[in-house]
Amino acid sequence: MLAEIITIGDEILIGQIVDTNSAFISKELNKIGIQVYQITSIQDDQEHIVKALKNAESNADIVLITGGLGPTNDDITKHTLCEYFDDHLVESKEVLEHVHHLFSKYFNRVPSEVNLLQAQVPSTAKVLSNPHGSAPGLWMEKNTTVFVAMPGVPYEMKYLLLDEVIPRVVKKFKRPFIYHKTLLTYGKGESDIAKSIETWENQLPQNIKLAYLPSLGKVRLRLSSKGTDEKELKKGLDNKMDQLVVLLKDIAIGFEEETSIEERIGALLVQRGHTVSLAESCTGGLIASKITSHAGASAYFKGALVAYDTKIKSEVLGVSSDLIKNHNVVSVAVAEEMATQSKKLFGTEYAIATTGIAGPTKGDGEDEVGTVCIAVSTPSEVISEKFSFGKARERVIMKSTNKAMELLLKEILKN
Amino acid sequence: MLAEIITIGDEILIGQIVDTNSAFISKELNKIGIQVYQITSIQDDQEHIVKALKNAESNADIVLITGGLGPTNDDITKHTLCEYFDDHLVESKEVLEHVHHLFSKYFNRVPSEVNLLQAQVPSTAKVLSNPHGSAPGLWMEKNTTVFVAMPGVPYEMKYLLLDEVIPRVVKKFKRPFIYHKTLLTYGKGESDIAKSIETWENQLPQNIKLAYLPSLGKVRLRLSSKGTDEKELKKGLDNKMDQLVVLLKDIAIGFEEETSIEERIGALLVQRGHTVSLAESCTGGLIASKITSHAGASAYFKGALVAYDTKIKSEVLGVSSDLIKNHNVVSVAVAEEMATQSKKLFGTEYAIATTGIAGPTKGDGEDEVGTVCIAVSTPSEVISEKFSFGKARERVIMKSTNKAMELLLKEILKN
Repeated sequence: MLAEIITIGDEILIGQIVDTNSAFISKELNKIGIQVYQITSIQDDQEHIVKALKNAESNADIVLITGGLGPTNDDITKHTLCEYFDDHLVESKEVLEHVHHLFSKYFNRVPSEVNLLQAQVPSTAKVLSNPHGSAPGLWMEKNTTVFVAMPGVPYEMKYLLLDEVIPRVVKKFKRPFIYHKTLLTYGKGESDIAKSIETWENQLPQNIKLAYLPSLGKVRLRLSSKGTDEKELKKGLDNKMDQLVVLLKDIAIGFEEETSIEERIGALLVQRGHTVSLAESCTGGLIASKITSHAGASAYFKGALVAYDTKIKSEVLGVSSDLIKNHNVVSVAVAEEMATQSKKLFGTEYAIATTGIAGPTKGDGEDEVGTVCIAVSTPSEVISEKFSFGKARERVIMKSTNKAMELLLKEILKN
Repeated sequence: MLAEIITIGDEILIGQIVDTNSAFISKELNKIGIQVYQITSIQDDQEHIVKALKNAESNADIVLITGGLGPTNDDITKHTLCEYFDDHLVESKEVLEHVHHLFSKYFNRVPSEVNLLQAQVPSTAKVLSNPHGSAPGLWMEKNTTVFVAMPGVPYEMKYLLLDEVIPRVVKKFKRPFIYHKTLLTYGKGESDIAKSIETWENQLPQNIKLAYLPSLGKVRLRLSSKGTDEKELKKGLDNKMDQLVVLLKDIAIGFEEETSIEERIGALLVQRGHTVSLAESCTGGLIASKITSHAGASAYFKGALVAYDTKIKSEVLGVSSDLIKNHNVVSVAVAEEMATQSKKLFGTEYAIATTGIAGPTKGDGEDEVGTVCIAVSTPSEVISEKFSFGKARERVIMKSTNKAMELLLKEILKN
């Protein structure tokens, strides 16, 4: 069982947008035992689309196409499918009604002629209803291959995939079982890890694959396996993963499929009835944003002060200006005091504070760009550390955020 | 002049990571007149990589490969290039020295055997030095096609591309000129816009392409053109863009290539000597994070209070608990008061406040999931509006953030 994903749209090939749809689709297909053989991104060009469809048909059982289904002139997927399937467009009553309904409900007016064109579908296509937009999904079959076209707008695509496509695929195809488990580690590099698990890695059975995924202060270690016997597969892989967890117990924080570091922290805090707050300077709200991206954050996260201006650190947060003057705004002393004051201001048991120079210019600090001090205040102490995270603004902010979460988790686990 | 990008790595095909490298590479190639014909993502599989290389060679003048160059066993790009080029690995003195240097400088130790394997390169490859990692870039030529392999770690790839690859490509190939200009609009849908610019769109010359890129409250309209006469090309496209700006003057906020909405707001505030602060609830720090992702934000952004817990809204921000009780925490009245208090707390001329229910559960509010109130306080007034942004948490947060920035910009422009 192989799938291929074709994304259509010049915006991807000129680098204007990042293709997030393919990752979402791949993940969902993996869950039901379907391996993605290839992802191909091509422009809005009829000839090239036909070529890609042909190529995909020769490789895959299912071809998932996204993009080019919109109501405007640059959208040519439907016409191209007609050419490929030697088909023609007909009006779908179902889609017509849906478009009328959408416009009366959300826009309080009748749809324009352009909007009504969405009801034109290839005559042999099964229409998949799209509750979040006017372009329907299209399910078409050729010989033994299924072709599914979906709109490129991510949230429309997501619902179509989950509610319409996946259930149909599950029903139609007999599928093997694919199992991944990924250990999240913070604080050690890829080759250091590789060295420390060398013997274990060399003893991995043929059917279990190990992959290293390093990124800005964390390394993910993924084990993958595929087969028909779900129970056997899981047992074999889980066993190897258990050994890995023991080998890496100092740096492992959990499994990516089950948790992120924010969720892990959240679960521990909830368990203990503790809460956390933040005093962010150089991270500018990114830590707060990461924490609150998870549903349920309100159970343990009270709030954050983004004290971007140095004055705000003293006037709102209550860090003494003398301390800032004597130690420099980017210092472990100031970071520690920020964390302590954050705990007071928000009434929490834990607090993280960051102060640093994200660059590209030096700002109020005297240190080099990339210098960041991070402090964590706990019910019993305040710890802090000074880091050097390089020159690129985005990386400095991201590395600081990852490191702050790592330090907080370590402190929570200590207490 | 066509390029093809091949990304190697199971992590993309199982949906574990989103491929951001391809967008970055495509954008940079476009800037020097090279069109990306196709982006292909494939797994760490020798046979499949060879097939993709062959296919790319038949389509493109330049093939850019990312991924699979790391020091661990799952990295097979180098070996596969040897197979494809009928070549073998030799030790590069230059890379060997670099690896030793990296380890003594950053890790204060000698590299392990695994690390030293990075110095093994195909004998016919030109080594491209990678200052940020141990894996070098590789430049190889076959007939008239150039193949370049780069590590998949984004920041290593970026520097290699910009400092090593692009200058070599510019020198080697005669290239046409590609020109894109993208108008950013906030507040109207794709088909509404299409209708209002229909006549203009129908009169676009053949060599200028229009694309619509809708996403969560904003629509980007891109004009693209390609040719040899840079001056003529720019003149023709700029002329059409000027007409479009006039047609969409109520919703256009600037050009994406020149500005984002955050930068536009920043520039206006700096011009007027004004500053902004935030009181974020449901957006959880995302607005602050967006603003501070731009260098120079400290000139106009003083700080933010992420008042996630309802109590923080009264105790730290100073919104009266009676107001919250009487109006409900998700209300325009509370949003307005949050904005007013934020201005006071941070001493700014402008403030944005958000309060809403991001979901999936209802939290402290009584409204439906997706209900969000946004207020903007200006030197002369406070405006606010209540929205309904659907059920998906991520979308609610993102739409609220986009809408908040849209409202702030509109208010600044009024004053």
